[in-house]
Parts: sequence; structure tokens; C-alpha cells
Amino acid sequence: MVRKYIVLITDLGEGSPFPGIMKGVIKSISPEAEIIDLSHQVRPYQVEEASFLLMCNYKYFPQGTILVTVVDPEVGGKRKIVLVKTKNYFFLAPDNGILSWVLKKEKPEKIIEVKNEKYFLKPVSNTFQGRDIFAPVVGWLAKGEKIKNFGPKIDKIKKIPFPEVVHQNNRWIGKIIYIDHFGNLVSNFAQEEFSKLLEQNFSLRIKNKIFSRLSSSYSEVKKGEPCLLWDSFGFLEIALREDNLAQQWRIKPGEKVILEIKRESAKGP
Amino acid sequence: MVRKYIVLITDLGEGSPFPGIMKGVIKSISPEAEIIDLSHQVRPYQVEEASFLLMCNYKYFPQGTILVTVVDPEVGGKRKIVLVKTKNYFFLAPDNGILSWVLKKEKPEKIIEVKNEKYFLKPVSNTFQGRDIFAPVVGWLAKGEKIKNFGPKIDKIKKIPFPEVVHQNNRWIGKIIYIDHFGNLVSNFAQEEFSKLLEQNFSLRIKNKIFSRLSSSYSEVKKGEPCLLWDSFGFLEIALREDNLAQQWRIKPGEKVILEIKRESAKGP
Amino acid sequence: MVRKYIVLITDLGEGSPFPGIMKGVIKSISPEAEIIDLSHQVRPYQVEEASFLLMCNYKYFPQGTILVTVVDPEVGGKRKIVLVKTKNYFFLAPDNGILSWVLKKEKPEKIIEVKNEKYFLKPVSNTFQGRDIFAPVVGWLAKGEKIKNFGPKIDKIKKIPFPEVVHQNNRWIGKIIYIDHFGNLVSNFAQEEFSKLLEQNFSLRIKNKIFSRLSSSYSEVKKGEPCLLWDSFGFLEIALREDNLAQQWRIKPGEKVILEIKRESAKGP
Repeated sequence: MVRKYIVLITDLGEGSPFPGIMKGVIKSISPEAEIIDLSHQVRPYQVEEASFLLMCNYKYFPQGTILVTVVDPEVGGKRKIVLVKTKNYFFLAPDNGILSWVLKKEKPEKIIEVKNEKYFLKPVSNTFQGRDIFAPVVGWLAKGEKIKNFGPKIDKIKKIPFPEVVHQNNRWIGKIIYIDHFGNLVSNFAQEEFSKLLEQNFSLRIKNKIFSRLSSSYSEVKKGEPCLLWDSFGFLEIALREDNLAQQWRIKPGEKVILEIKRESAKGP
Repeated sequence: MVRKYIVLITDLGEGSPFPGIMKGVIKSISPEAEIIDLSHQVRPYQVEEASFLLMCNYKYFPQGTILVTVVDPEVGGKRKIVLVKTKNYFFLAPDNGILSWVLKKEKPEKIIEVKNEKYFLKPVSNTFQGRDIFAPVVGWLAKGEKIKNFGPKIDKIKKIPFPEVVHQNNRWIGKIIYIDHFGNLVSNFAQEEFSKLLEQNFSLRIKNKIFSRLSSSYSEVKKGEPCLLWDSFGFLEIALREDNLAQQWRIKPGEKVILEIKRESAKGP
Repeated sequence: MVRKYIVLITDLGEGSPFPGIMKGVIKSISPEAEIIDLSHQVRPYQVEEASFLLMCNYKYFPQGTILVTVVDPEVGGKRKIVLVKTKNYFFLAPDNGILSWVLKKEKPEKIIEVKNEKYFLKPVSNTFQGRDIFAPVVGWLAKGEKIKNFGPKIDKIKKIPFPEVVHQNNRWIGKIIYIDHFGNLVSNFAQEEFSKLLEQNFSLRIKNKIFSRLSSSYSEVKKGEPCLLWDSFGFLEIALREDNLAQQWRIKPGEKVILEIKRESAKGP
């Protein structure tokens, strides 16, 4: 696997100097590396948001890419840092659960606890280890260093639960887990799990709004009108055509979404 | 023409994951490609804003650059996607008029309707074709694929009118068409058309403010004072020195700008 | 020194088209150049903020990097543009004092006043010389042009004073000089100067809040609680764990920070 591609997913801030500093450290070690920003605008300290972006999007990067996730509320504390090799990718992240969702999709072949200080920038600060640990480690990794050199092999990473839809009293209770740049709401109803169910007559409620049909694209409804569709991440999305639904309806991540199937009347031909 | 440079102009959001995903897809196909972000912060769905940025700035990129514009309110609908070759550049965009202003400056040599699904990422989503169509097509194009392979030749693209200044009752009525990061206002008075006229005595009004002289740089006026000058895009700009005029005067794109020439008294020697 | 790396520090705006335009100009001249954004989100016209970022972070970039700082309130006016060579780096900036802090750390070996118009983009605008002067000059420099070709050697650059902590009546009076993306406050108490002093019993006050101990990392305090620590820039930082202190306490750059050493009682063993 060619290792030159590095993808950064952080909460360090678009426009903040921190991502650029990490790139300086990486390129100082590995001049051939090519760095792609997936996002530096994960909401500060939101491990789940970074996990979601990583899980949905890692597969669009070239084989051999090193995906580095720095959303690290315990920076400088006792959490480990882990490097995981899968069949197609490398993942480097604090061991705070951030890799647990993506590694359900990409089976880990080897997990290393990164602790060989030889590869760190000294002195290691306790506030910006993106610069002092993550960047130099990924620089050396991209340069071809063997992963066993970064530290001991370990058996498992920390896991955090995916916010699954709950089935209760004939209703499915989900929630909004991501709001995109356009104000579109992404729920936790996964297409692979719910697409069959939504071919029946259904009613889906968020706040006091009710949806009973799926659109196949935004352009099926009129400007300013709401629609429900499968989004590009593979989840059920609620959007206003050419408007910002999250702002207009004042919805934040965590808002409940309730699905009911109307079993009495079958869908018409 | 070397085809390795790709410029992205989108409303996908600075800090959103979407531009990074497109880059992953492009680099997976064309490892030699170099991608430059012109802006991902076009206001959502504002086709005219993207058209303006493209028209003013395409010429600063190397010959052979592929300029990809993804501001696509009808994504997933019936609009076409077009690939245009000019003498110096390639342009890829939804056929919603977004290329009509730039193609007055760069004569199209060949227009292709992009429809050969062989080059698309499958399944093609109806919500993020930046990832599923634009990115892989530009990847293959950068890799050297012949443009005729992407689809049939067509004769013309959709056109939208440029917001020209209107001449009426001895007055020229224009408007603000772009507000930059500093809060400077860019009007539709083009330097090549109006520079002669503004050598006469004139009065230019926006809201209740009147200007009667041109400055040659911001530093000709005092801090916090307004000035009128030809900007770097080639249009008449109104600015506050070292302050944000759009915020201070609460002005938005679309605000009227009225020019009158005082013919009675000629400008002094 | 390999000259291919170029770092941009500007107030041109993340998401604005201006940095991308500069990159187009640079790559048109020097296809081998690699450009890293340190920040385009310096607050508009804030020369001191750019100076601070440059001073703290230049050293993380590869030897030979050309660091270009475009925060230029006098653009188009009479200020000079200077190119400075040090042992390890090149610096290009308006001569408005922006280089004076970093050049205390990196001794200038040669200072050139950039005025050879042969290397400028014509016509040179008076509003965006990042595009018309800085970008093409750095492009030619990265391509290997001798620095003496850009203009005459001069003896010194303009200097602006660093906002030093003031010692007065047994108190040290400092201030907040930078607020980062997380809302953490960076003061002007430098670690190399004050770390010994803060090993004694002390009291540090900002607004009506008092600190009397240093933490070694954010994770030493509970979520939402304030802490005081040496930050990754080498200065004393005040932060809320996993929250935005600047927003919560409504603090802006310039806020006073007052340190007193309690000499009566020595710190316990």
C-alpha cells in the first residue's frame, strides 16, 4: 500500500493555525506526504461527530491512506493513542472510542499503542499533541516506518455505542445525529436497515412536523418546502429545498425523530 | 495542455466534509492531480455568486486547469452536467447558467454533456453528485481521458443574464453584486465600461451616502472613512478603511447604487 | 535550502476566494511549489495577531520554507514590501512591523526591498497586492530566483514593540494577546520568563476570577472548570475544560491579567 496520503479530521478549527502547524511538522519529516483536510470544523470535543464523519467517508480515500482523527478532550491525560492497521487503511487517533464505529466496517488487523517517544516532538506539550505526537508519528508512518516500531501491540480499542434507533411499542425512535452545512438534518435511520420498511405506508414525526413520503431528490419539492430522502451518507435526511431547515425550524443535534408504520392500509399500487 | 490542476468553487462549506470527500475521490483516480480551493463558501445555492467569482478569477490559474463549479440547487433533478473546453481551460459544472458569464471571456471550443455513467461513482446519489459525478469525472479528465468519452457533443449551454447597469433618465442604476471578507462592497459598474465616465464630475449614491471622488487606494482616506475605488476584480468598490462597511452600514447584496454625471461643470484641469 | 514550501498567513478570509487566487498565481509560475495555509483567519488588519502566529510557529515548517504574511492595512500606500533571508527561512511581508517579533528569534542575514516590477503581475492593483506582488514574487523565489534580483538591499525593517508584561508595585501586569478556536485565552506571560516565578505561591487575576495553581493539562480539572497552564505556544493560558472560556466569561483580546507573588509563605515541599 502506498502510504503517502494523510487525511485530517479534527476540531482544531478551520482558519485556526493548528492544522497548518501539523502540516508543517508532517512535511518536515515526510516531504512526499499529501495531506487532505476532511474537516477541522468538528464541533469542539464532539467525539461522536468525528466518529460519524470517519465512518461514513473513510472509503472515499485512496487505499493506504492514513486517517488521523484529533478530537481529544482528554489531551495530556491518561488516554492512550492508538494506531490501527486494516486491510486498506491506517487509522491514528486518541483511544477515546472515536475509531469504534469505523472499525465495524474495516476489520482491524493490528492495533498498536503509540508510545515510543523517539517519534515525538520534544518537549511534548500537554495541550497540543496534534502537533507533538500525532503529526510526527503520521509523518514517520507515511515515510514508511514499520508500525510495530511505534509501540506495543494491544488487543482492543475503547468502544462507544452507536446511537441506534430504538424499537418501542410499535414505534421506532431515532434522533438527529448530524446537521450539515446546508442545515439539512441527518438522522440515525440507516438506509440499509430501514429502506424496506419505508416502502410501506409510514408517518415520520420531528417536532410537530409529519412526513409520509420519501422524495428521491430535493428537486421533487418546491423551493422552501420540506422533504425526506436517503442522503449521501446512507441515512435518512430531512431538508428544506434551497433553505436551511436547522435554522428555520430551530433544530439541533439530538432532536427526536419518531417513525410509525401504518400497518392497516397497504401502500397503493 | 497539462491537465493536473483542478480548481474547486462550491457552496459545500469551508470546514464541511464534502470538499475533502471530493478530493479523496479525485486522488483515488488521478494521483498526480493537484487541487486548489477557490472557495467553498459561495452562499448556498447562489449560482450568480459562483458565476461572478469564476468570471473574475479563472485567468489566474495555470493553462490547462480544470475549473469545477458545484453550486447545484437542482442536484438529482433534470438539469444536465456540462464539460466545456476552451483554448486555455476546462470547465465542469451543472448546466444551470453558472458558466455563461465566464464563457463570454473564454470562447468555448467544445461542449460535452456529461452522461457516460462509466465514469460515475455507483450508486449515484441524488444529493451529493459533487462526490459521485463531478469528482470522478474530473479525476478521469485530469488523468488524460478524452473529453468526447464523457458524453455527446452539444451546441450550447444554459445562459443567465449578467446584472448589467441600467441607463435611465440620465442616471446609471447599478447594484452591489458581491461583498468580500472585509465587508467591502463590489458593484456591477465595470471599470472597462465606466472608467472614462468617472473622470468627469460625478455623484454616486448608495443608501443615503454620496461619493464624488475616486480614491486610488484605501490608504488615501483616514481609518474608518469611506472610499470609492476600482477593485481587484475590475469593478467599482465601496469600502471603509480598516473597517467592515457591509456591517457598519448594514448593506446586503442587491443594494442599489446610483450614478449621476454632473454635466454642467467640467472637471477642473 | 530546498525552496518549494510556501506558508501563507493572511487576513484574507477562510472561504474567501483570495487565498485560492494567490495559489493560482504561484503555481502558474512555480509548478513544483507546495503551499500550506497557516491561517487566513487573522482578524482583519490585525498586524500584531499575525506577528504572534508567525513568531510562535515558523519553526515547525521545513528548512527553506518561504513564509508569506499578508496582513496589509496600508496596501497600495507607501509602505515597502520586504523579503528577509535568515539561516533557515525566507520571510516576505509588508514592512509594517509584522516581521519584527519573529526576527528576534531568526537573525536576518539579508533584507531586500521588493521593488523590481519585472516580477509583478501587471497592472498592479492597489487593493489586492497579495495577488499582484506577493504571489508572483514568492512564485519566482520558489522557482530559484536570486533574492538580490527582487530589489535593493536595505539595512532594517520597521519594528513594532512586543506587548511585554509590565512590572509595577510588586505586581506583573499582562494581558490576553490571542484567543484560540476553543475560546482558550493566551496571555503574554512567557514560559521562559515566568516559569520559575510561578513555582512560588502566586495569585493571578483576570476580571474577577483568581487562580493560584498551575495545571499540567486540561484533564486535571473537571469538565466546565477553569484552569491555568503553559500552552503549546509557550505562554500562560487560561481555559475552561471542554468549554469556551472567551464566550462564557465574555473576554476579548486586550483583557488585563494581573500576577502577584505571595512572598510571605513559601510553597510547601
